[in-house]
Amino acid sequence: MNEKESLLEHINGPRDIKNLSFSELKALAAEIRHLIYSTVNRNGGHLSSNLGVVELTIALHRVFNSPEDKIIWDVGHQCYAHKILTGRRDSFSSLRLAGGISGFPNRNESLHDSFGTGHASTSVSAALGFLAGERISGGKSHAIAVLGDGALTGGMAYEALSHAGQLGLPLIVVLNDNRMAISPNVGGLSKYLSRLSMKAKYQNFRRSFDAAVKKIPAAGEHIFNGITRLKRAVKAVFYTDNFFVDLGFEYVGPINGHSIEHLEAVLCDVQKLNLPVVIHVLTQKGKGYEPAERDPSAFHALSPSPPQTPGGAKCESFTRVLGGAMVELGAKEPRLTALTAAMEHGTGLTGFRKAYPERFFDAGIAEGHVVTFAAALAARGLRPVAAVYSTFLQRAVDQIIHDVALQNLPVVFAIDRAGFVPGDGETHQGLFDISLLRAIPNMTLLSPASGEELKTMLDWALRLNGPCAIRYPKTSSTPSFAAETPLELGRGVFLTAETAEPNTAKAGVLVAFTGGLYPSIQRAAELLREKNIQADFYNLRFLKPVDEDYLAALLDSHEIAVFAEEGVKNGGFGEYAADLALRKKCRAAILTLNAGDRYFAHGSRGELLARAGLDGEGIAASIAAYLKTVKKV
Amino acid sequence: MNEKESLLEHINGPRDIKNLSFSELKALAAEIRHLIYSTVNRNGGHLSSNLGVVELTIALHRVFNSPEDKIIWDVGHQCYAHKILTGRRDSFSSLRLAGGISGFPNRNESLHDSFGTGHASTSVSAALGFLAGERISGGKSHAIAVLGDGALTGGMAYEALSHAGQLGLPLIVVLNDNRMAISPNVGGLSKYLSRLSMKAKYQNFRRSFDAAVKKIPAAGEHIFNGITRLKRAVKAVFYTDNFFVDLGFEYVGPINGHSIEHLEAVLCDVQKLNLPVVIHVLTQKGKGYEPAERDPSAFHALSPSPPQTPGGAKCESFTRVLGGAMVELGAKEPRLTALTAAMEHGTGLTGFRKAYPERFFDAGIAEGHVVTFAAALAARGLRPVAAVYSTFLQRAVDQIIHDVALQNLPVVFAIDRAGFVPGDGETHQGLFDISLLRAIPNMTLLSPASGEELKTMLDWALRLNGPCAIRYPKTSSTPSFAAETPLELGRGVFLTAETAEPNTAKAGVLVAFTGGLYPSIQRAAELLREKNIQADFYNLRFLKPVDEDYLAALLDSHEIAVFAEEGVKNGGFGEYAADLALRKKCRAAILTLNAGDRYFAHGSRGELLARAGLDGEGIAASIAAYLKTVKKV
Repeated sequence: MNEKESLLEHINGPRDIKNLSFSELKALAAEIRHLIYSTVNRNGGHLSSNLGVVELTIALHRVFNSPEDKIIWDVGHQCYAHKILTGRRDSFSSLRLAGGISGFPNRNESLHDSFGTGHASTSVSAALGFLAGERISGGKSHAIAVLGDGALTGGMAYEALSHAGQLGLPLIVVLNDNRMAISPNVGGLSKYLSRLSMKAKYQNFRRSFDAAVKKIPAAGEHIFNGITRLKRAVKAVFYTDNFFVDLGFEYVGPINGHSIEHLEAVLCDVQKLNLPVVIHVLTQKGKGYEPAERDPSAFHALSPSPPQTPGGAKCESFTRVLGGAMVELGAKEPRLTALTAAMEHGTGLTGFRKAYPERFFDAGIAEGHVVTFAAALAARGLRPVAAVYSTFLQRAVDQIIHDVALQNLPVVFAIDRAGFVPGDGETHQGLFDISLLRAIPNMTLLSPASGEELKTMLDWALRLNGPCAIRYPKTSSTPSFAAETPLELGRGVFLTAETAEPNTAKAGVLVAFTGGLYPSIQRAAELLREKNIQADFYNLRFLKPVDEDYLAALLDSHEIAVFAEEGVKNGGFGEYAADLALRKKCRAAILTLNAGDRYFAHGSRGELLARAGLDGEGIAASIAAYLKTVKKV
Repeated sequence: MNEKESLLEHINGPRDIKNLSFSELKALAAEIRHLIYSTVNRNGGHLSSNLGVVELTIALHRVFNSPEDKIIWDVGHQCYAHKILTGRRDSFSSLRLAGGISGFPNRNESLHDSFGTGHASTSVSAALGFLAGERISGGKSHAIAVLGDGALTGGMAYEALSHAGQLGLPLIVVLNDNRMAISPNVGGLSKYLSRLSMKAKYQNFRRSFDAAVKKIPAAGEHIFNGITRLKRAVKAVFYTDNFFVDLGFEYVGPINGHSIEHLEAVLCDVQKLNLPVVIHVLTQKGKGYEPAERDPSAFHALSPSPPQTPGGAKCESFTRVLGGAMVELGAKEPRLTALTAAMEHGTGLTGFRKAYPERFFDAGIAEGHVVTFAAALAARGLRPVAAVYSTFLQRAVDQIIHDVALQNLPVVFAIDRAGFVPGDGETHQGLFDISLLRAIPNMTLLSPASGEELKTMLDWALRLNGPCAIRYPKTSSTPSFAAETPLELGRGVFLTAETAEPNTAKAGVLVAFTGGLYPSIQRAAELLREKNIQADFYNLRFLKPVDEDYLAALLDSHEIAVFAEEGVKNGGFGEYAADLALRKKCRAAILTLNAGDRYFAHGSRGELLARAGLDGEGIAASIAAYLKTVKKV
């Protein structure tokens, strides 16, 4: 690469690729792949999906004029080539680094990122909204949604396709069919797309037929009608009557998604069509990087190269602990079932799936359905555990309120990636689950501080007669400290055995925290000791319900109570604690530490905690500063 | 009816209809219709949908054995015949009355209500969950989802159908196609169903073909394969290649949904099929009641007969005020667009749709899509107002977090039916929106106390550079009191002009409230005056953001501050106020009044407010009681 002339270094915007030859574009694609691969290898990020759409991205930017035309990347984890081609080649080295460019489209970053994405299945709604707005405003620009077959399993995509069919606007939906969501695709839809692909052999016939029809002069109404009728009949047999056509779309495809020439020709045709159209493109995840081609799931998302760390046994991640506990419990409890929404690997359930395939369900990107499905399993007498990332559980709030909690059904939610999530940024932080779930009646919400505690909680939750959510962060679980202390409804546990009993505690400061902050708390404890600040550390365990008399007694036996939680301020545990302190007229002054009322851009977990003041240094500093203000009063 | 022998009075459970003749069943259907009509006319409730499914309900209970077999009614507003046939004929007179039977399936009410519904599109997920649980447990019972064509527009139904296709369990989906959601159906899907219905003429052919095939003895593998191939070919032309078949279902239909005999025959066949199947049933909303047949939308839901009320000008509902304001603003503001999700009439947008059809969008039951579509309209420079009921906005929490608020896009949410909603019960209360929306960064949340204030707020919100939600109850708007006081960011307004200025107020009690409680507050004010309790009444207006210095000053100038809000306690404004009072070290003792941490069964709005202690009497009594405890300290 270094020896040859670089084409990429001359590309400062989509305009610069418009005059390249197809052979130059092929070379450009190779350069882009190399840049993506080397950057992801260093910084972490999504690899397979990005390698799969290099040619598609080039073709889209050749035919359409971004940013006037809106190209919207569903999920957005396949936008790297788009970023590189739209003025971010040089800054691409800062991908996913704190202060660097985001791994997802972001309106604050570039005009070419016309709509931010992160969660699946939003692109059709967004592109349709742009187009509807364009029509109202009298504009003529295009809007293109690029949607994977995984994202197509999300019900929202279907809602949008149905609406688009109704409106009849010239929406362009590129269905990027790589036969994979995060994990290999599941569902009736997936089988359907395979069958659709097999119809490819009819495309040649269709093309020559269409060409022949075009040559016939549309002399009279009569001939035209005849042709139209004939075309319809042919379509009916060969390529109409598919899902998209049923919803009111024209359907083109499947097309080889790695042929820029072919893609460009089709996109040019489609641009003139003035009708809603689905272009079915077949791509290969990981294209051009052999290991990723072989096992795209393994190369879906890479973590950054691990920095040189001093020795010490590495702890298991909470995810692995959950996965292991599920396999163990599955043997004892035949009613245990596991569910996820295209997060089998990410939630650690692969072992469970292999051990108990008949009790494992992955419904694809379909959180709403999964939660109600789980509710029915529970109503039937089973013990479902729905494992979902915190950020994606936001998709199922109504189903939790309306199907699970209202009926007080014993569904366990294993909420992975709760709190700050490294790398992915604003769209993926798990900062809302505490507020959202606290609001829901009948819900129990737990927050383990160690892997051992997660296991204890899961076991406990499975014997509960109502819904229970267990939230834990994307990080390694710290060694157990008080896991042997049995769970008591509504009560937490002190950090060290030496800590005085609640009611007799003489220390001035109580620091209560949500489990995922345990490492921060350990560090804060060291720092406070250095400052000669005596403090008791209290692992809340229960964020709901709370043994209010017990907690009030703790607040009465301390001068100051600090509540540190990894979630937004509004509706969080801190506000609850303040309300409790007032209701119970507790003695302690209350300090709440949390993620505030804002979104957090990407960074490592440590950086994010520091940004929110929830690392050990931040917590210790806040407490020290607060002590000064309290003493002044 | 009175003259004849009643069949219905002998029906105490589904077993009792199994031995009736078809002519008796026809008479029974007429009796059921009569009971439904007369009850709804008196108590209020859903009419058209219930009249439409009488025969379908009878046929289902003839063929299947409830409660072992699970019949799940999507949305659930068509379950009246089901309730009447499953032991609730006599209690049916208490339909929707406080303490009486619910208008929706309810697990607490009967074993035959196997899964509670209320929100749309959950039935397929629930039925599939039951069936999956049945398989794991080794049972053989059936599960039937009865789903309207309206509910089929919800993405969750599609997620579930796709999953069902994957699992291949013998799920029975009855698609009750009445070509209506709450308002006439919209979307590509709707057109598709119409086309599907037109294929009915092929059904006769198909039936005779199937019958002929059945007669051929399946002697050898060879013949069988040949027949299978032939059947496939015929299916491919005539009735396969539809949406449901694409997802892995067998498809039967369309069938006349008012012929018990025909329905029963098909259900018997399908029961033996051991495959997922969709039965497409055509019914007529309002069947058997001529006015409802003519205009089913008008008879979708009836309010109870109005009680005799003393004279006095009736106020416009908040819904009508919103609708009128939208029409007015639409003339001045060409960027104003209105969106809803199958709630055009319910949210008062019919006038806007008629005046500005090109700026009105109804995407069907698809709240998630509607919100992201609105975000894109806003990103394109328009001013979208999404009008949705509070309870249904729960379906779009993630879209608000991820698409609207994260990008700080100026979408206005007109949240109708916020707070207590008369009649419909647990599933329809609007008690979560304050907690859910407060948690979301960039969100402004307003609560008008009168129609005038709603208009002022809408106007203000449309000039805001970020998302804004306005929540108002399903009730008539009380006359304006302080609408002329202009809106100030984060500040509320005192109830009467005579009230002293905030910082100089000498009164002991401040009663702050969310707008929908204004009538309760007026009554409480009277009662407190009678008890010689001096109080200032403060209409909060802004639930987020809050001018904290201003509110803190109010809390400092009063001995006691009461926060009354129509929403759940957890994450509500009361907890926020407690946190503020502690942070700002305010003088006032805080009392919070709210809907607690529970669900509320059906009742009138007045009854519900009283049940929560949020009617005038409840608020006054709580304040009086609190004053006593405070004075004791």
